[in-house]
Amino acid sequence: MSSMNTVAMMSSIADVGRDAQRGGYSRPVFSTAELELRSWFTEQAEKRGLEVETDRNGALWAWLDAPGKERTDVVVTGSHLDSVPGGGAFDGPLGVASALAAVDTLRERGHRLERPLAVAVFPEEEGSRFGLACLGSGLMAGTVDRDRALALRDDDGNTLADLARGAGIDPTYMGHDPARLARIGAFVELHVEQGRGLVDLDHPVAVATSILGHGRWRVRVTGQGNHAGTTAMDDRRDPMAAAAGIILAAQDAARAVPEARATVGKLRPVPGGANVIASTVDLWLDIRHPDDAAVNALLATITARVTEIAAAQGCAAEVTAESYSPTAHFHAGLRDQLSASLPGAPLLPTGAGHDAGVLAPHIPTGMLFVRNPSGISHSPEEYAEDTDVESGTAALADVLVDLTSKA
Amino acid sequence: MSSMNTVAMMSSIADVGRDAQRGGYSRPVFSTAELELRSWFTEQAEKRGLEVETDRNGALWAWLDAPGKERTDVVVTGSHLDSVPGGGAFDGPLGVASALAAVDTLRERGHRLERPLAVAVFPEEEGSRFGLACLGSGLMAGTVDRDRALALRDDDGNTLADLARGAGIDPTYMGHDPARLARIGAFVELHVEQGRGLVDLDHPVAVATSILGHGRWRVRVTGQGNHAGTTAMDDRRDPMAAAAGIILAAQDAARAVPEARATVGKLRPVPGGANVIASTVDLWLDIRHPDDAAVNALLATITARVTEIAAAQGCAAEVTAESYSPTAHFHAGLRDQLSASLPGAPLLPTGAGHDAGVLAPHIPTGMLFVRNPSGISHSPEEYAEDTDVESGTAALADVLVDLTSKA
Repeated sequence: MSSMNTVAMMSSIADVGRDAQRGGYSRPVFSTAELELRSWFTEQAEKRGLEVETDRNGALWAWLDAPGKERTDVVVTGSHLDSVPGGGAFDGPLGVASALAAVDTLRERGHRLERPLAVAVFPEEEGSRFGLACLGSGLMAGTVDRDRALALRDDDGNTLADLARGAGIDPTYMGHDPARLARIGAFVELHVEQGRGLVDLDHPVAVATSILGHGRWRVRVTGQGNHAGTTAMDDRRDPMAAAAGIILAAQDAARAVPEARATVGKLRPVPGGANVIASTVDLWLDIRHPDDAAVNALLATITARVTEIAAAQGCAAEVTAESYSPTAHFHAGLRDQLSASLPGAPLLPTGAGHDAGVLAPHIPTGMLFVRNPSGISHSPEEYAEDTDVESGTAALADVLVDLTSKA
Repeated sequence: MSSMNTVAMMSSIADVGRDAQRGGYSRPVFSTAELELRSWFTEQAEKRGLEVETDRNGALWAWLDAPGKERTDVVVTGSHLDSVPGGGAFDGPLGVASALAAVDTLRERGHRLERPLAVAVFPEEEGSRFGLACLGSGLMAGTVDRDRALALRDDDGNTLADLARGAGIDPTYMGHDPARLARIGAFVELHVEQGRGLVDLDHPVAVATSILGHGRWRVRVTGQGNHAGTTAMDDRRDPMAAAAGIILAAQDAARAVPEARATVGKLRPVPGGANVIASTVDLWLDIRHPDDAAVNALLATITARVTEIAAAQGCAAEVTAESYSPTAHFHAGLRDQLSASLPGAPLLPTGAGHDAGVLAPHIPTGMLFVRNPSGISHSPEEYAEDTDVESGTAALADVLVDLTSKA
């Protein structure tokens, strides 16, 4: 058995997938960097005597009690290894590394498992490559349609089916996996906090309560491509000007609704030349609110403005849903059990999506958050102190001991 | 001698550099497509017995009267073969193909040259790859600093020096070429019209009078990259929202100044994920006006708004000049000579930049425009009727006969 603390494991992967241009890490699913992290995970798990398998959707499962894997009360922990473009070091890998370290702690304590335990790694949690967040867990849970998923294309035109095949996963069998889902008795995901909740409360670790409802829409604005020098201002149908109006309208609309968030972080003008009025601009609208009805109302407000703004610039606009996850409330019993294992740990909601949120409607699911002093994530500035990382790992180990102590 | 009309030549290159994603053509300088067009030009010129050379800045010169190439009254015609991303078929290649066809016409007429004649192809006229329009002619004329030019990088991080070297041009010798410039007695460029002037006047060919003053600036807006779900609207420093305000401010400012144009056609958020508040947004501002003082005044107005808008979003902004070409007035004597060769041809200014505009302050320079029924350019919809293409070619041949008839 190899034992290594979480900080040491995190530093052993600190050079994988660095992004020199954006800063931080770019580890899209099935990229060289993400595949290298998967190999690293498999090696680390096997070093610990865990049996590793890849499921039909490309998730990795490392079994501490392989003979128990057919039972229906398996305790699962884990997270993901893919990142957003130019993301931080912790979002994903921290939940994977701390799970492996918690396994070491269980063994050091001589803990005897009364329920099977597995560590899982889900693919494409961020949706950075194919535009659909929590793709691996959504496929397993049956909330993502397999045919739609397999046909998704990345920016280079590769389909998910192509890239899965390249990574040794047969796309024929991808999709809903109710048998595997039914075997999970509890899923606990440790994650770096993505806001300032723990900083403000001065605590290292929190127990999650819920995840904001979250949708992603593509807005395509179509105008008339033309020459930037020869086309008079009054003769233009400029989709970039319309896109600009839409971005500001989304910001205004979200500011008017307490707790709402609306973001445009991705925008692509076509053709994209500096001396060319664009013919089309695609932009992506991310909307979140704790109340699903409020997400829909905000979308309706913004969509009405999209149509007006595009028309005022002589353009047309089309809004297409790419993904939608309703507000996820974590399992109350499991939440109370996590709180009992972690006396004094605050209870916090989050605005970030997670595989745990996708699984929450189907199985008892909970999350732990580790303090992030910057309060910033999806950015190179995301951070966690070593002592907090180890506090989080100890909390996860305590929770896993508690969950696996009684059959 | 091989003879082929301009329409046939244009159709022989119609498959080179098509852009399936954007539509039209993407032929950036030194790309496979542009290098293929250069080879095509060399082959066509050599078939006609012209002597082809590459100058120190990568421009191609095909000499009809090679022994005369050291004289200082050379008549030069030509244009460029590079395109904007997703551009039309005519912008550039029409001036090159019609020049070759005009050479055929001169020969068919048995015209005896009293002045040497050359066909020139300038590299990176569009500035699509390195951000600096009319780079080849600007280097020759000494208006572009060679060290700055050689260090320019394309979106993939390649320098101009690297790519020139790859195309067989030694960057050591790139830069101001006063000796070559001094040999040009007159430069005439035929180009597809990039507006509706000839459509409205119902004429196939025009003589150019001037080119609008034209500058390009990069605006870098810096905010705070963060998670789109966890960051409250009031806690954001979102450079995309600031960029949106800047795009609309530029549009407003240009609309308020008669004859002014301001365009943002290129915008790049970093990191560019849909679920990420961007940390930085770069956008490019293209400003044009027939009066140079008005360009500067408009830039000052927009720059003041950039600072205000960025500050209101908690961001910083920086405006950097990338290129500037003052208003170019074509040579009055040459313009009158072109008009005399083309009775009834209207006189038109243009908002588009051209190598002829860069050369205009240094040598007698003129342009001919061929009618574009769509009025649209830098777009797949740019167009010219076959009969207008041949009228333009005949006009160019007449002009070249006239210019080369007397030493």
